[in-house]
Amino acid sequence: CWYNTTFSYNLDICRIQDVSRCKTDAVNVIDCTGITMQDFTIGKVSSVCGESAFRYLEAAIHDAIEHKISAIVTAPLNKEALHLAGHNYAGHTEILADLTDTKDYSMMLWSDKLKTIHVTTHCSLREACDRCKKDRIVRVTRLAAQTLLQAGINHYRIAVAGLNPHAGENGLFGTEETEEILPAIRQLQSEGINAEGPFPPDTVYLRCYKGEFDLVVSMYHDQGHIPLKLLAFHDGINMTVGLPFIRTSVDHGTAFDIAGKNIARPDSMLQAIKAALRF
Amino acid sequence: CWYNTTFSYNLDICRIQDVSRCKTDAVNVIDCTGITMQDFTIGKVSSVCGESAFRYLEAAIHDAIEHKISAIVTAPLNKEALHLAGHNYAGHTEILADLTDTKDYSMMLWSDKLKTIHVTTHCSLREACDRCKKDRIVRVTRLAAQTLLQAGINHYRIAVAGLNPHAGENGLFGTEETEEILPAIRQLQSEGINAEGPFPPDTVYLRCYKGEFDLVVSMYHDQGHIPLKLLAFHDGINMTVGLPFIRTSVDHGTAFDIAGKNIARPDSMLQAIKAALRF
Repeated sequence: CWYNTTFSYNLDICRIQDVSRCKTDAVNVIDCTGITMQDFTIGKVSSVCGESAFRYLEAAIHDAIEHKISAIVTAPLNKEALHLAGHNYAGHTEILADLTDTKDYSMMLWSDKLKTIHVTTHCSLREACDRCKKDRIVRVTRLAAQTLLQAGINHYRIAVAGLNPHAGENGLFGTEETEEILPAIRQLQSEGINAEGPFPPDTVYLRCYKGEFDLVVSMYHDQGHIPLKLLAFHDGINMTVGLPFIRTSVDHGTAFDIAGKNIARPDSMLQAIKAALRF
Repeated sequence: CWYNTTFSYNLDICRIQDVSRCKTDAVNVIDCTGITMQDFTIGKVSSVCGESAFRYLEAAIHDAIEHKISAIVTAPLNKEALHLAGHNYAGHTEILADLTDTKDYSMMLWSDKLKTIHVTTHCSLREACDRCKKDRIVRVTRLAAQTLLQAGINHYRIAVAGLNPHAGENGLFGTEETEEILPAIRQLQSEGINAEGPFPPDTVYLRCYKGEFDLVVSMYHDQGHIPLKLLAFHDGINMTVGLPFIRTSVDHGTAFDIAGKNIARPDSMLQAIKAALRF
């Protein structure tokens, strides 16, 4: 073991070969690629780092599938570096789903007072409207209910947001609420899942934040991300639900503009680790 | 003049025939319909009240066009009552635009720390995608710049939000940013309007709230309404910009469930009146 001298933290960092050799009270690192500080420049995109990011994740997935570890907590990933290394994934989530052969998964943003799961995420807003279908809403809301139960929230209440302004105002501003969302809620209720809605999107997050609900089912990326980033910018974490193991992640990017300056806030990483422990 | 005994406020309410007869230190009321408290039940939808709401607004518009008054501040309107009285408008804004023959107007939500104007409002999310066009974005952002200048914010900075997640991520999640929004911003800049973007929608409202921008141009109803309702639920006001006079409004509904109980919060109405005075 040796001490980190690059930053001011006094960490006991141990290089280990296998997760079974973990030491307590230390940061245990399995060296998957042999990369050293001489192989890259802090804050610059490089294929060497992109390859490392992929190889470390691959090793973690392997250990998780073999039940050697219970959870994976991911730091941000630079997509450009990943693509430079020839790994054409949109991000961590897609790698995790692909390598574990998972079909039903969803991005959940989790903070103390506001939680949301997404029916659609990384696609255009037009495509989000097309993908807002009963089956997908049912599957995503089931994952949300399972996750709340796993977190010990037994008497949960789930609010399902509408897709359109005023949740469609009785069909005046769109038909997805009556044709897809409401039938999904009825099916979920028949399965014993405590889901209600569809609610007008512009007030449902405030209602959840104030305690009326435990979680909001969001129809598209920004519907869920705008309120979470506003109300839980430093304590929000990103979870992928539906995988065969627990995966949490920070809810921010690589921030190469401040890399190596020792000014990044660790709050989101701390929350992500704490959340993984909780589950 | 007589005193109001229905509620606990000690208000000097004066019935006047014309705005020129206004008394200071009193609430001056022009009786447009002769309606009395015996003609309706508090908290119940009725065509009598819908007709009155329309006639009062019509009279105010008349006085504003003739420059007898400088601004109109509107309380919430019950659409059902309005329709029962045979006035088939979506709300105040559409009546104001119609009776003043205004084509270019937009809904602005205004609070101390966060302001936004909408490219589209009361239509489905699919239709909002279709209406997100260069010309409309240019016209709406011009109205925003004029309004900021009128409010005395001379060195304003306007942020234009993207339509899609991550503002389209270079065309990966939609093309509206490159085909409509960016060309609109370039044209606005060539006209000397200080507008930037398109920015990822999930962080631009926080950046504005923290002072980096004075206003965000929102592409659709909930993109602008979700952050405003979360961060400025009790001090936000609704303005229609583009009309030949100033119009502000409360940013909440009629709340018939608490009508007559003397528990409604007056904050938004106070903010609306103060904002009208400011302009």
